[in-house]
Amino acid sequence: MSFRIFADITAPATTLKLLREITEGHHLLLPSKPAASVLHKADPDPLLYTADIAFGQPDPEALVNAHQLKWIHVSSSSITRYDNPGIRSLMAERNVIVTNSASVYAEACAEHALAFMMAQSRQLITALRTRVAGGEPEWHALRGGSVPLRGQSVLIIGYGAIGKRLTELLGPFDMKIVAYRRNVRGDEGVPVIDETQLAFTLKKGVDHIINILPESASTHHFFDAARFAGIRSGAVFYNIGRGSTVNQDALCDALRSGGLEAAWLDVTDPEPLPDDHPLYMLPNCFVTPHVAGGHLAESVTLVRHFQENLNRFVREQPLLDRVM
Amino acid sequence: MSFRIFADITAPATTLKLLREITEGHHLLLPSKPAASVLHKADPDPLLYTADIAFGQPDPEALVNAHQLKWIHVSSSSITRYDNPGIRSLMAERNVIVTNSASVYAEACAEHALAFMMAQSRQLITALRTRVAGGEPEWHALRGGSVPLRGQSVLIIGYGAIGKRLTELLGPFDMKIVAYRRNVRGDEGVPVIDETQLAFTLKKGVDHIINILPESASTHHFFDAARFAGIRSGAVFYNIGRGSTVNQDALCDALRSGGLEAAWLDVTDPEPLPDDHPLYMLPNCFVTPHVAGGHLAESVTLVRHFQENLNRFVREQPLLDRVM
Repeated sequence: MSFRIFADITAPATTLKLLREITEGHHLLLPSKPAASVLHKADPDPLLYTADIAFGQPDPEALVNAHQLKWIHVSSSSITRYDNPGIRSLMAERNVIVTNSASVYAEACAEHALAFMMAQSRQLITALRTRVAGGEPEWHALRGGSVPLRGQSVLIIGYGAIGKRLTELLGPFDMKIVAYRRNVRGDEGVPVIDETQLAFTLKKGVDHIINILPESASTHHFFDAARFAGIRSGAVFYNIGRGSTVNQDALCDALRSGGLEAAWLDVTDPEPLPDDHPLYMLPNCFVTPHVAGGHLAESVTLVRHFQENLNRFVREQPLLDRVM
Repeated sequence: MSFRIFADITAPATTLKLLREITEGHHLLLPSKPAASVLHKADPDPLLYTADIAFGQPDPEALVNAHQLKWIHVSSSSITRYDNPGIRSLMAERNVIVTNSASVYAEACAEHALAFMMAQSRQLITALRTRVAGGEPEWHALRGGSVPLRGQSVLIIGYGAIGKRLTELLGPFDMKIVAYRRNVRGDEGVPVIDETQLAFTLKKGVDHIINILPESASTHHFFDAARFAGIRSGAVFYNIGRGSTVNQDALCDALRSGGLEAAWLDVTDPEPLPDDHPLYMLPNCFVTPHVAGGHLAESVTLVRHFQENLNRFVREQPLLDRVM
């Protein structure tokens, strides 16, 4: 079978060459102006209307005119752009399969989360700034302020491919790991709690709260003032999901009052924050610019993952990372 | 059996209270001026000369006059102060057991090493400084510059309790781990290489070189210009052993020339380095002030470990962390 593949990705020439190789025998359609990154929406391109397969971040508005489409392979882990009743019903109606690239970013995102946790535990940022002789009070304080991860508790909120991989990485630390997930599948491998238990768990106290919630109408400001107020003091908050899931004013308050010990954020709303944003000013808030999923030769991993799914699609086998 | 226990440690009042509790029934001898930390030598104290057991950092010079001594429990992981032919033969002659506190610091040290590795892998320090919008060239460079630990290679030089724990922590990353150790015991659980294989391994190339060598005459400047020149470029160098094992001029050269990708040091020579030291100026060198073993309630862990060995000593059972 030969398909018309609309590929809307920004990648180095070597990756585009790889894309040409793995789509040999098919008809590759490249838009004149691809999306700037896997986080950006592409401009509408008429080539999409003739495609059987779309790979990248095709313009959601344009999908209604893409009558040939059988499968969309989204180049990000997030499918926010397509996760609404309009697109969902359109895809269902036309039997269009939607897959995402969660597997591509899970390793890097989980490692980024662990890097955050270990930097917090080892007080790495303060330690790198401190030049002090052994035995001085400042030195004793720095050493004594480090709390080993071993045996601590973790709550993972939004438990997909990233949460699963993070749980694997945390294995040797003998931590108490609990997950919160709206749609429990039963294959999580860790205890999964519901909304009532979530409030109870936060109140009882956890050492690390890892937010990996995607952006959607139901996750908007999931962490608001009431939620932060319900967390027993001493917890560290991490966000590697989406910035919109957090009310940032409430987060600032929790960090200022000491309700939260610290926050490590890879995502904010907007990105980047304005230079004078209070989150940049707080000494217990650490922000990276939405790079958790990034990794060497990312575009190659992305194309290889698409290749695997293309092979499966041609053979009419179940696709990886199917979301619709 | 009741023993006279000379305990030379600096600790909060609550820990000294604990020490009194666990030594009840024995005679606790506290010097008027204890060592400033587990890294400092204590001043000689005549109480030592009447003791059966010494716990802390007793003055090595004074040991010759401590004729009652049966067991020394050193409060650090390093026994450099006692690791010389004079003390070794004195201890052997008098049948004095020497144990150290390696188990006390292994978890924190291994976590510190992993924190370094993950901060390097995720380019954490650069990422925390960067405020850039998704899709910009700087953003793509930052994402693409992160190399996941998964599948990379690690060489651990000096393989004791810390190396073993680090190997456990690295388990889920599926890394190629090799150890170098002078005295191979056969229970390492990872391939152990000798001096010839070490040169070959460094030349062939490894991603991460973790130096955990203790200080001794034979490890002085173990990493010198010739050793650094023999490392295939691209490696990251970590030191959580002792500063004296590295020729710092040679390290600077390797970092400047790009022979080494980066260095993460918890130990230097001296500590701290002078403020104008080139290692502080290099953008690819990261220094923490000898805090790797530090952790919350460290003195409690230390006393609990001594308690375990004291119980064993009283029952004439083999002691933990015996080094002489």
